[in-house]
Amino acid sequence: MARKKTVKKATSRAKSTAKTGKRSKNGNPTATKEKIVALAESVLSHIDAAGNPSLNVPIRSLSNVSFNKRKRIIELGDGKANRPFFDLSNARRFMQTLLMSSELLKLQDQEKTTSIRDMFYHCKHTIEGTREETFNDQDESDPIIEDLEVTLRTLREELRVFANPDGAMVGPMVVRDRGDEIDLSRMGSGGWAVPSIVEPETIQFVKSKAKYVLLIEKAAVWARFNEDRFWESQKCMIIHGRGQPPRGVRRLCFRMVQELGLPLYVLVDNDPWGYYIYSVIKQGSINLAFESARMAVPTARFIGMSSYDAVEFDISPSVTIRMNDKDIARAKEIMAYPWFQDRRWQREIKHMLKLGVKLELEALSNKEFSFIADTYVPAKLKKGKWLD
Amino acid sequence: MARKKTVKKATSRAKSTAKTGKRSKNGNPTATKEKIVALAESVLSHIDAAGNPSLNVPIRSLSNVSFNKRKRIIELGDGKANRPFFDLSNARRFMQTLLMSSELLKLQDQEKTTSIRDMFYHCKHTIEGTREETFNDQDESDPIIEDLEVTLRTLREELRVFANPDGAMVGPMVVRDRGDEIDLSRMGSGGWAVPSIVEPETIQFVKSKAKYVLLIEKAAVWARFNEDRFWESQKCMIIHGRGQPPRGVRRLCFRMVQELGLPLYVLVDNDPWGYYIYSVIKQGSINLAFESARMAVPTARFIGMSSYDAVEFDISPSVTIRMNDKDIARAKEIMAYPWFQDRRWQREIKHMLKLGVKLELEALSNKEFSFIADTYVPAKLKKGKWLD
Repeated sequence: MARKKTVKKATSRAKSTAKTGKRSKNGNPTATKEKIVALAESVLSHIDAAGNPSLNVPIRSLSNVSFNKRKRIIELGDGKANRPFFDLSNARRFMQTLLMSSELLKLQDQEKTTSIRDMFYHCKHTIEGTREETFNDQDESDPIIEDLEVTLRTLREELRVFANPDGAMVGPMVVRDRGDEIDLSRMGSGGWAVPSIVEPETIQFVKSKAKYVLLIEKAAVWARFNEDRFWESQKCMIIHGRGQPPRGVRRLCFRMVQELGLPLYVLVDNDPWGYYIYSVIKQGSINLAFESARMAVPTARFIGMSSYDAVEFDISPSVTIRMNDKDIARAKEIMAYPWFQDRRWQREIKHMLKLGVKLELEALSNKEFSFIADTYVPAKLKKGKWLD
Repeated sequence: MARKKTVKKATSRAKSTAKTGKRSKNGNPTATKEKIVALAESVLSHIDAAGNPSLNVPIRSLSNVSFNKRKRIIELGDGKANRPFFDLSNARRFMQTLLMSSELLKLQDQEKTTSIRDMFYHCKHTIEGTREETFNDQDESDPIIEDLEVTLRTLREELRVFANPDGAMVGPMVVRDRGDEIDLSRMGSGGWAVPSIVEPETIQFVKSKAKYVLLIEKAAVWARFNEDRFWESQKCMIIHGRGQPPRGVRRLCFRMVQELGLPLYVLVDNDPWGYYIYSVIKQGSINLAFESARMAVPTARFIGMSSYDAVEFDISPSVTIRMNDKDIARAKEIMAYPWFQDRRWQREIKHMLKLGVKLELEALSNKEFSFIADTYVPAKLKKGKWLD
C-alpha cells in the first residue's frame, strides 16, 4: 500500500505541474513535460479502474535491434515488455520508473539540468517503514533513465540529464550558448568545451563559414590541428571527443550536418577501436539503438587512418604496432557487422588483418610534427580518399 | 661509433640553432633553448677532450624526495646520478636523452607544441645498421622527458610538450590565449577548455573581477555550479580537472594564486582519493616533486567535503557509501604522510575511519539539485569552515 501511495503522489504531482506548463526561460518546450505527465496519467487511470497498473517499455536488448539498410542506421524494433506493478519480478522496477519520472519532472519545473549520477543520489532513499532502498546503486538507476528515454520517445538531454561532458571545438562559426554569443574562431589554444546538452533550446548556430566538420579521435591530436590553425586555412570546424565521443559531441555533429548541411569527416587511429568509433558516429550503437535517428550521421565519412596509409604515405614500419589476439578478434567481429558489409570496408579490414599491424594518429609525427595537418588530411580530402 | 656520430650530429645541430636564437612569435623566451644547447655543449666538450661523455641527472626516486615543512611543498633533493656514455647499463638512456634533446630543440625552433605520445613516435626509429629501436615504447620516452625537465630545471610545458589537455573554466575574467581575448563570463554552458600549456607566453590574465578560485573535482558537478551561475553571484572563477587535475589546470590555478593573489578553494569527494587530490594541488606529488615550486599551491584550502559534513548538513545515511578495505588502507596511508600531520587533518581522517563511510559530492543532490551551490559551499565559506 505504501508503494501505491507513492505512485499516486508522484502522478498527482505530475498532473498539477503540467497544468501550469509554459515555455521555459531557456525556451525548452513543454513537450517533454507533457510526455512524462501522460505516462503518469495512464498509470493513474489503471489505478482508478482498480486494475493492475503497468508500463509498456520498449525492449532494448539485441533481439529488438536491427540495422536499417535503407536509412543506414541501427534501429530499435517495436518489441515491448509489459511491466505490471502487482508482479514480484516487476514491482521494484515499476516503483523506480515512477519515482524517477517524478524527479525528472522536478528538473523540468526547476529548469535545471543534472548528471545521471546526481539523479541516482537524488532518488535514493530508504522506503518509509522498510529497510529497502529505492535504488541500491547507479547500475540500477541508469537503465531506468534509458527505459524512460525509449518509453517517452525522448532524448536523455530533453529529460535534462547527462553523463560527463567532454570534448572541445573551434572553427569559423559563432554559436549562442545559453544566451552568450561565442566566436569559435577566437578561442585560443583551449577551445570551447562542448557541453553535455547541446539541444537547440540551449545551443544555436548564429553564423558559420565552415565548409565541413572534422571530428578527431584524440584531444592531443586536435591540439595539433588547432595550433596549426587548420580550421582557418581549411574553413572547417575541428572537434574532438577524447576517444569514443560523448553524446554532446555526437549530437552537435548531427546538428551541424542536419541544420548546416556540412559534411562530417572522422579521423581515428587505424585499429579496430577506431573503426568502431566511426561506426557508432555513423550508424549508432546497439546499446543506444533507440536514439540513432537523432544522433547517428549515416553520411559520415571515414577519412582515416586506413590500413593502406602506411604504404601510401611512406610511414616507417618502426611506428606501426603489431596486433595482439584481442585486436585480431575485435577486427573479425567488426568485419561481421551488417554495417561493415560494403566490399570496400571488407577490403579495408582484411588488409589490416593481413598486415597484422595497427597505426596510431600520432605515428604520423614520425615524419614531421605537422605532417598530419599539413599533408595527410589535405591529401586525403583532395583525392577524395575516404570510406563511407 | 655510430652512436658517437649521432651525439655529435645532435649537439652540433643544437649549437647552430642556438646562434640564431631569438624571441619567438608567441613570445616564448629563448631560455629553454639555451638550456638544451648548454647540455649538448657540455657533452661535446667531453667528447672533444676524448673523455667519457656523461650526463648528471637529478635522482627522482623517493630517496631524494622530502617534504619541506617551511615552504610546505614536496621537494626534490640534491642527489644526482651520473650517466656515462661508455657504460653498458647507461649507454641506451644516454643516447635516448641526447636524441630527445635534439628533437625537443626542433619544437623550440618550429615554435610548436606537441604531446608526449607524439614525441615518442617522433623519436622512434631503427638505429642505422642495427635492429635496435631508439625507443621501444612510451614507457621509455616519458621518463627521458622527465629526466630532461629536472636536468634542465625547466617545466615540461617550457619544453613545449604536454600530456592530455582536460578541464574547463568560467568566471568574471578576461584571458588572452594565443592572442585571442576570451571573456570567461560569456562562455555559455560549455566553458573555456583549459589548454595543456598555460605558460605566461601563451595565456595572459587581461582583466579579473574574481575574488577567489573554486576548483571542483568533477566535471558534472562543475556544470551544476555553472548552470546556477555561482561564479556570477559569488564573483569567483570555477574550474574543474575531471578527477586528479591535469597539469594545465594545476598550473593555471598556481598562476591565478601567484599573479592575481586569489585564494584557492578545493572541493572534492569525501574519500581518501579526494584528500589526495587536494594534497597534490597543495604540496605537489612525490613522482613530480621537482616541479612543486612551480605547480603546488601551499595556501590552497580544503573547503570540503569533510567527514563531519554528513551530520553538519543533515545528509541522509542512505547516500553515504561504506568504505571498503582498499579505502581504509588508503586513508591510513594518507594519514601517515608528513603533510597531513596537522592535528585538524588527523582528526578529519580519523573521523572518516571511525564513521567508516565515504560521501560523494553528488550525494548532496539528495536534498535539492542545487543544494551544493546554493547552501553547502556558501555556508562553508561564510563560516570559514575549511582545512588548510
